[in-house]
Amino acid sequence: MRILVLGGDGYLGWPTSLHFSARGHEVTVVDNLSRRARHNERSTDSLTPILPFRARIDAWQRESGKNIDFLVGDLQDAEFVNRVVRDAQPEAIIHYAEQPSAPYSMIDRQHAVETQVNNVVGTLNLLFAIAEFAPDAHLVKLGTMGEYGTPNIAIEEGFIEIEHKGRKDTLPFPKIPGSFYHLSKVHDSNNIYFAVRSWGVRATDLNQGVVYGISTDETDIHPDLITRFDYDELFGTVINRFIVQAIIGHPLTVYGSGGQTRGFLNIRDTLRCVELAVLNPADQGEFRVFNQFTETFTVRELAGIVQTAAASVELPVAIESVADPRVEAEEHFYEPVAEKFLSLGLDPTYLSTELVTSVLNTASTYRDRIIEHAILPSTQWRRA
Amino acid sequence: MRILVLGGDGYLGWPTSLHFSARGHEVTVVDNLSRRARHNERSTDSLTPILPFRARIDAWQRESGKNIDFLVGDLQDAEFVNRVVRDAQPEAIIHYAEQPSAPYSMIDRQHAVETQVNNVVGTLNLLFAIAEFAPDAHLVKLGTMGEYGTPNIAIEEGFIEIEHKGRKDTLPFPKIPGSFYHLSKVHDSNNIYFAVRSWGVRATDLNQGVVYGISTDETDIHPDLITRFDYDELFGTVINRFIVQAIIGHPLTVYGSGGQTRGFLNIRDTLRCVELAVLNPADQGEFRVFNQFTETFTVRELAGIVQTAAASVELPVAIESVADPRVEAEEHFYEPVAEKFLSLGLDPTYLSTELVTSVLNTASTYRDRIIEHAILPSTQWRRA
Repeated sequence: MRILVLGGDGYLGWPTSLHFSARGHEVTVVDNLSRRARHNERSTDSLTPILPFRARIDAWQRESGKNIDFLVGDLQDAEFVNRVVRDAQPEAIIHYAEQPSAPYSMIDRQHAVETQVNNVVGTLNLLFAIAEFAPDAHLVKLGTMGEYGTPNIAIEEGFIEIEHKGRKDTLPFPKIPGSFYHLSKVHDSNNIYFAVRSWGVRATDLNQGVVYGISTDETDIHPDLITRFDYDELFGTVINRFIVQAIIGHPLTVYGSGGQTRGFLNIRDTLRCVELAVLNPADQGEFRVFNQFTETFTVRELAGIVQTAAASVELPVAIESVADPRVEAEEHFYEPVAEKFLSLGLDPTYLSTELVTSVLNTASTYRDRIIEHAILPSTQWRRA
Repeated sequence: MRILVLGGDGYLGWPTSLHFSARGHEVTVVDNLSRRARHNERSTDSLTPILPFRARIDAWQRESGKNIDFLVGDLQDAEFVNRVVRDAQPEAIIHYAEQPSAPYSMIDRQHAVETQVNNVVGTLNLLFAIAEFAPDAHLVKLGTMGEYGTPNIAIEEGFIEIEHKGRKDTLPFPKIPGSFYHLSKVHDSNNIYFAVRSWGVRATDLNQGVVYGISTDETDIHPDLITRFDYDELFGTVINRFIVQAIIGHPLTVYGSGGQTRGFLNIRDTLRCVELAVLNPADQGEFRVFNQFTETFTVRELAGIVQTAAASVELPVAIESVADPRVEAEEHFYEPVAEKFLSLGLDPTYLSTELVTSVLNTASTYRDRIIEHAILPSTQWRRA
């Protein structure tokens, strides 16, 4: 298939591009390299060293014999988006190309506006380009489980049947997102669903949990193909933060009581889920929502797992509660449904102490690259 | 009270400003005069002649002896918004300052993006300004009943209690908006609710129906104080279109079967609703949603009412079905709830043939100003 990967230089976009290329698909990758720019701005970096965009594309060609087309450009530039979609004539468009950090969106007004404009306008431009130049293309959009928040009922996959005053309808699942970033994804989902209803676009919205792991079949081929490992307060995720803290002997910082429960999945399962979505496309005029995670953990539980894994490689580390910089429930009911990918054939890789130990060992080889000032949260959800 | 009216040069913003000024409140009006600019762009205009912004402010001072402060500026300009909120120290902020046309947002990509960026960024800037410079101010935001779409269950006021798999929660009412404009209002509502939860902002979201009428106590004082009467395909509403069509003897153009049902209210009830919301403010950290309309009609019924009113003043006119330029259900269940304003004391003015006749008579005095090419729809929801 002809596949366009938007945001293909990112943590997930890069391994996704290799995954499809390895399986014989024609892959075109687009990225504005914003993650690199944002790290430069803040003097932070991926723990794993990432080659320049062109160099990693060349490395893939060298190692696999396969070619990936790549383009540097921004989805906010409508002319660029039109040209890319028109020229690539993709059958599937995998859209990761968004500002993906909740804390980044909460820094101040400017970052909130930047996040929402970047994500909403990029996706709008893409929808118009699809409608005009590739109306049969299947849009596979990365959303987040964070769109739903933590309601007191089970979270269904995108839609819920509601019975009310003796009548019934199946309606979009209510969402209570927890940051301006999460809100931008809700805005996107609403815009995409409208384009599906109005123009017959085919779309799958993947409400993904928190992804962990850095090992995939393709990135493991050569160190030049490694993917990002972000652990800083803006772009890092909780497991990465804990792993880096264990390596430097800093107590694992749990926000508040640590009862925040979220969905998680291994990076290998992300690739498999995206592949399943692409190989089983939505119909014309169909808007599908898949919840994309394999298990749920509290932050407290994750700290315990990392602590145990670290102890097994002689990195004893304490767990410490710090004031929660976010506005969120620290203890809550959480029961999201994730059945659709299982029924499409997903065979999950579950989190284990052994897996965390393996990531810890890989990360340890880059311990000289750890930038300690970047780890602890400085961005506050509350306004002074 | 100190009241800031954003969008105070508009169809509703202007009479709202006079209404509060007449009742002794200190009113500051802000507008970027975008409606005037958009009419200029398209060689269209309000049927009623509207004085320059400053001249109508002066006319109000002359007629009432009361002063209204006015500022020309754009909510997308964060420095401007900060300065206005900091200097005015408003107790209530009435926010009408958005691109309000569904067809305008559907013209093409550029207009869709312009609408969403204008409305979302303006409201984000306002939320940050409130949090920083006027945290006690009560935000009264104009939304639209169109945010909900036409679900097959009763539409509650903003939130619905859902029982699901043996558990219960009260969650935001699911929304299926019907244009990029309506979507922008949904985005706003989600952003505002987040600011309420995170920062303790006090906010009331008014999901308003379609407003008709041009007579208010204050605008009736002198022709210089009249408000807009837009009837063009972009900024006009269905009743205004029918009235102008009746005046020029053009068949009343019903889109499709005309079974589209919507909530409606008289402009006098809009002013009263906004006043009730302002005088009974939301608590700190409270997000209230009021459905703001007084009765529902199908488009077919409205055409019948205007036809009858027109016949009574010897303007016989036919009713004609044209292809619906929108993607919407032409026949559907519709049962929105609107109890909160009644319980606050709203005493509605209902639509009647006499009232339509009165508007017809007023509008007829401006019949020489009718621009016929502007009336029929040229904007299509579907992409070719």
